[in-house]
Amino acid sequence: MEEKNLQYYINKYNETNKILRAYGYANYLSNWDAETTAAFGTIQSRNDVVGSLSELSYKLSTSAEYTETIDYLFDHRDELDDILKHEIYEMKKNNEAQKKIPMEDFVAFSQLLNEVYPVYVKAKNEDNYDLFAPYLEKIIEFKKKQIKYLEKDNRFNNYKGYDLLLDGFEPDMTREEYDKFFGVLKEKLVPFIKKVTKKKLKYNKKFLNKKYASSIQFEYAKYLQAVMEFDPNYTVMRESEHPFTTGFGNKDVRITNHYYEDNVRSSIFSAIHEMGHGLYELHVSDEVDASLSGGGASMAMHESQSRFMENMIARKEVFWETHFSKLQEMFPKELKGINYHDFFLSVNEVKRDFIRTEADELTYPLHIMVRYELEKKIFSGKIKVSDLSNEWNKLYKKYLGLKVTNNKQGILQDVHWAYGNFGYFPTYALGSAYAAQFYKALEKDVDIDKAIRSGKLTDINNWLKEHIHKYGASLYPKEIIKKATGEDFNPDYYVKYLIDKYSKIYEIDD
Amino acid sequence: MEEKNLQYYINKYNETNKILRAYGYANYLSNWDAETTAAFGTIQSRNDVVGSLSELSYKLSTSAEYTETIDYLFDHRDELDDILKHEIYEMKKNNEAQKKIPMEDFVAFSQLLNEVYPVYVKAKNEDNYDLFAPYLEKIIEFKKKQIKYLEKDNRFNNYKGYDLLLDGFEPDMTREEYDKFFGVLKEKLVPFIKKVTKKKLKYNKKFLNKKYASSIQFEYAKYLQAVMEFDPNYTVMRESEHPFTTGFGNKDVRITNHYYEDNVRSSIFSAIHEMGHGLYELHVSDEVDASLSGGGASMAMHESQSRFMENMIARKEVFWETHFSKLQEMFPKELKGINYHDFFLSVNEVKRDFIRTEADELTYPLHIMVRYELEKKIFSGKIKVSDLSNEWNKLYKKYLGLKVTNNKQGILQDVHWAYGNFGYFPTYALGSAYAAQFYKALEKDVDIDKAIRSGKLTDINNWLKEHIHKYGASLYPKEIIKKATGEDFNPDYYVKYLIDKYSKIYEIDD
Repeated sequence: MEEKNLQYYINKYNETNKILRAYGYANYLSNWDAETTAAFGTIQSRNDVVGSLSELSYKLSTSAEYTETIDYLFDHRDELDDILKHEIYEMKKNNEAQKKIPMEDFVAFSQLLNEVYPVYVKAKNEDNYDLFAPYLEKIIEFKKKQIKYLEKDNRFNNYKGYDLLLDGFEPDMTREEYDKFFGVLKEKLVPFIKKVTKKKLKYNKKFLNKKYASSIQFEYAKYLQAVMEFDPNYTVMRESEHPFTTGFGNKDVRITNHYYEDNVRSSIFSAIHEMGHGLYELHVSDEVDASLSGGGASMAMHESQSRFMENMIARKEVFWETHFSKLQEMFPKELKGINYHDFFLSVNEVKRDFIRTEADELTYPLHIMVRYELEKKIFSGKIKVSDLSNEWNKLYKKYLGLKVTNNKQGILQDVHWAYGNFGYFPTYALGSAYAAQFYKALEKDVDIDKAIRSGKLTDINNWLKEHIHKYGASLYPKEIIKKATGEDFNPDYYVKYLIDKYSKIYEIDD
Repeated sequence: MEEKNLQYYINKYNETNKILRAYGYANYLSNWDAETTAAFGTIQSRNDVVGSLSELSYKLSTSAEYTETIDYLFDHRDELDDILKHEIYEMKKNNEAQKKIPMEDFVAFSQLLNEVYPVYVKAKNEDNYDLFAPYLEKIIEFKKKQIKYLEKDNRFNNYKGYDLLLDGFEPDMTREEYDKFFGVLKEKLVPFIKKVTKKKLKYNKKFLNKKYASSIQFEYAKYLQAVMEFDPNYTVMRESEHPFTTGFGNKDVRITNHYYEDNVRSSIFSAIHEMGHGLYELHVSDEVDASLSGGGASMAMHESQSRFMENMIARKEVFWETHFSKLQEMFPKELKGINYHDFFLSVNEVKRDFIRTEADELTYPLHIMVRYELEKKIFSGKIKVSDLSNEWNKLYKKYLGLKVTNNKQGILQDVHWAYGNFGYFPTYALGSAYAAQFYKALEKDVDIDKAIRSGKLTDINNWLKEHIHKYGASLYPKEIIKKATGEDFNPDYYVKYLIDKYSKIYEIDD
């Protein structure tokens, strides 16, 4: 009999992970295909297959043999290298969490999500919340059941309720911490936004009402792909209802976009945002990529990279000083008489509006606050699903001063809940705050304006790769922030960044 | 302990097949993705995953438990319903065949094929046979090894060598039968083609040198999709290097096309060809689709359906009398002054030429003969891989009177060998012969010209579905031919069809 020593279990672990990665690849690919390619009527047949693959994956990852392997490695984690040590701790935590969910529930939930997506698209298109609500209710029921399972015999933390979902997206961020974080933003930003939105930006706006052909918008996205060094040898750009990024390791990363012919700016910043995510995946070191710790360190870390590129880099004036001429060359009629300063001001205009993904950088966190408040209510049982749409509208009135008149611009605007993702939204605001702190650190090492002016983001990419991306998920967000910036996470950078930037643009003296 | 009766094994069988279908789906989807979407640099990472999935599939389909199940059902096949009875016989045959191939070989071959594809594309683009040859050699070595494995203890037939590969694509078609089949064609068609190619067709040719925008060709393909009732709710059309069809059951069928701007006819007939394959997959009955006997009955049966649509329907004059006006509407400048009769003649012009996929209907079988002769030589060991390119060129001289001057137009033109498919090509010619016999039977029940004039192929599709498609692979080709046409396969229909049609077009009296 083979001796069951450390090497034996490391081999077992690697063999099993190879299979789990294959299942994961198949499921992700099927999802990518469903949203970019497959015909509408294919749902049922795909559903059956995805169900089978989920079942296989679940069985293997909760099998006695794999559990024995994880347990052994967990107990011997001090003998492991750093990457594996970190991974096994997370694996053990996830393994225990997953084992708590009965297989029937797990498979049924996968299948439910597959069914829900087209219903969500239909409900959104038809502005019909009542069509979506019964499905949303089923998803929430499952999440509540999941919380109950997770609360039981939890040896990794003592979180209850919604905190367990929050922790699933951002390690050790709970309601208590998010309440504090949003409290700071509310205190400092809400009065500032009031000042800003009393003023008007003056610039040549005549390009805003023009039509911009999708095919040329796509050409400009390809130009930006070169600027951002989003290597086409390992990447793909396609279209889907809602833009997203999918990574199959550091050698196959894909983004989607959605082109609106009446809004040329939307697809530009979506593309940059998704490429920000994509570069993170591409830059993970081969060593980390070969482990199960590829991809990003957390949701907020991932979002910090997309928002860093979208807001801190691509909404700078120097970025448009450098790249507006190319856009003008592609849309000569539509952009006639417009200069880069006009365009720069237009992409930094602050406006209280309905759609989160189209929101300006400054009001953005208010959109997140609405969702955070709603999710807290859902999981404390303080609201019925049928009332969610009304409550959404009330909160938009309260935080953004807006009267929501249809669900398409209201509660149906985001796909996340249809995917079963609760506890996800808050990471978007947190990501922006991380990004501001990274920007400050980058500034010490790199002349950012000069780097942008060079035409390619090489110097910036190299810094991000070296200080953040290469680690993948082999370190916790808090560790990466400390290493990259020399200090713990501090939301003041974010508030200061926003107030400085928009005081200058809106000529506000304090 | 559960009683191991018939129902027990039927359940076991269905459970395992569900998993095998999921693996198959993942592999097919990955392949579809590789050829339509994925970036070039993703090969290695995909290769690893495809290898894992192939290994899992192989292990399961040769496992002791599954073998026991198949064996039990095979021994009790007289107690099964017709679909399952047929399926188990084939399954047992395949299971025994597959078990003979060691897993390492099976996995290595899957990985090899993944590596070869991009090399083949590069070699073709660069007209460099020497680049491809060492990979082709590895593939052939594997196929020869496979033959050795298959020859041993074969209880289903006593085929040797290349016959085993032929049987793999078309049940019970061997060298002996193909030699006879091609013998008839050679005897009757070669002298007829000589007569035909001495004459010239007269029609307005000025549209042949125009440029046809790919995007509009794609629009016309979508128009044809409606004509052919290739239901967009269950189908997808994309682009790839070489056109192909992929079916994931009868609810998700996909075709690809390749658009050449200097040849508007190529993509039209490719689209119709692939939709012919696709309709076969779509029309399989739900009962058969739920079994493992979905898809087509054999390669030649599949090809009979694609060539039926491409040649027997879409190259008829009445088809262009009905659908040319739409093409002219989409390309008004390019097709100015051309009438449907010109177009009809142009798509039936007979020309000895290099490229099989662009060959006219009449010379087509000669292209197949070259490949058949070469494959026979390869597997009888009468030729070295390094000499294949020269031998190819010699045979084109002999059968088609052509001097091949580059490998791109010669041995590198087809992807099949790069996919490891030997014994496949002969089914193309056989498929055309099946199609001619089906046409004769259809004619008795349906007024074909009237059906085409109606604008949609509804009546023709219904007949094909009812007499051929619905059975999927639950019957052997020979059984379907007998049921659909009332007699055994008879190649005379094919020869008569070709000679009648081209005698009329070329005004040849005999």
